[in-house]
Amino acid sequence: MIILGIDPGLAITGYGIINETKQGINLIAYGCINTSSKFSAIERLEKIYQELRKIIKKYNPEKIGVEKLFFAKNAKTALMVGEARGVILLTIKQAKVPFFEFTPLQVKQAITTYGRASKQQIQKMIKLILNLKEIPKPDDAADALAIAITCSQTKINL
Amino acid sequence: MIILGIDPGLAITGYGIINETKQGINLIAYGCINTSSKFSAIERLEKIYQELRKIIKKYNPEKIGVEKLFFAKNAKTALMVGEARGVILLTIKQAKVPFFEFTPLQVKQAITTYGRASKQQIQKMIKLILNLKEIPKPDDAADALAIAITCSQTKINL
Repeated sequence: MIILGIDPGLAITGYGIINETKQGINLIAYGCINTSSKFSAIERLEKIYQELRKIIKKYNPEKIGVEKLFFAKNAKTALMVGEARGVILLTIKQAKVPFFEFTPLQVKQAITTYGRASKQQIQKMIKLILNLKEIPKPDDAADALAIAITCSQTKINL
Repeated sequence: MIILGIDPGLAITGYGIINETKQGINLIAYGCINTSSKFSAIERLEKIYQELRKIIKKYNPEKIGVEKLFFAKNAKTALMVGEARGVILLTIKQAKVPFFEFTPLQVKQAITTYGRASKQQIQKMIKLILNLKEIPKPDDAADALAIAITCSQTKINL
């Protein structure tokens, strides 16, 4: 089962794609949708929409996990993340792929069974679980892979 | 010139449509896109997308104004407003209508030439400008009309 994890952001949206088999979890791909602050918010949001559609079309995931936030540095940051997240959720809805949300705490607990794990500990676990030579970079892509792994542990109730 | 004003929100997105002629500004329509908290965020965002597309198709505005926020009650509210706003901006971008953002302060200054005007003063001015018998309800629709009026004072540089 192909699973896509997404870490939403206006400037950087991380994505990670894994394949869950009976033998375990394999890495398929990871990366980021980057948008430049030289462009207006409306142009950046459209880029996120278009790039995410391409990713979904290319990898055809059977389920998608997205990071859910309740907190942000400030209201401006929250509004910007929210805008990106709104566009991402709409894109998923239009693609008709089953969708799950996970808080950072849920991701930590799923990956390390320890809610207070550091970012570094999470990243080391991702490397181990996916049998990688190096920790995936940047952080946004590593976070997206962590969300995909968390999502692989979630049963679909259709 | 038909102008659409939008006051974004996940639960209630207000909209107001005016016609600007040489003789002045006339009301065309106003209302709200309501989404129930019984539905998931992803379903509510899709409803906003679909309803806004219908409104743009029906009234065919030549420009659209949207409220721009920098502050919110808390991060959770900001994230929710941001999600609705992201979907609204994407819808406008796809409809290829020229688009402008206005902060609440800019709207106040445009409507009353007084940045510290109260909500009630703004609403009375809307009633006067549009020659209405009553103040438009709910507040979200009145706010959207105030944004449309502000937008009518903004020149398009295409």
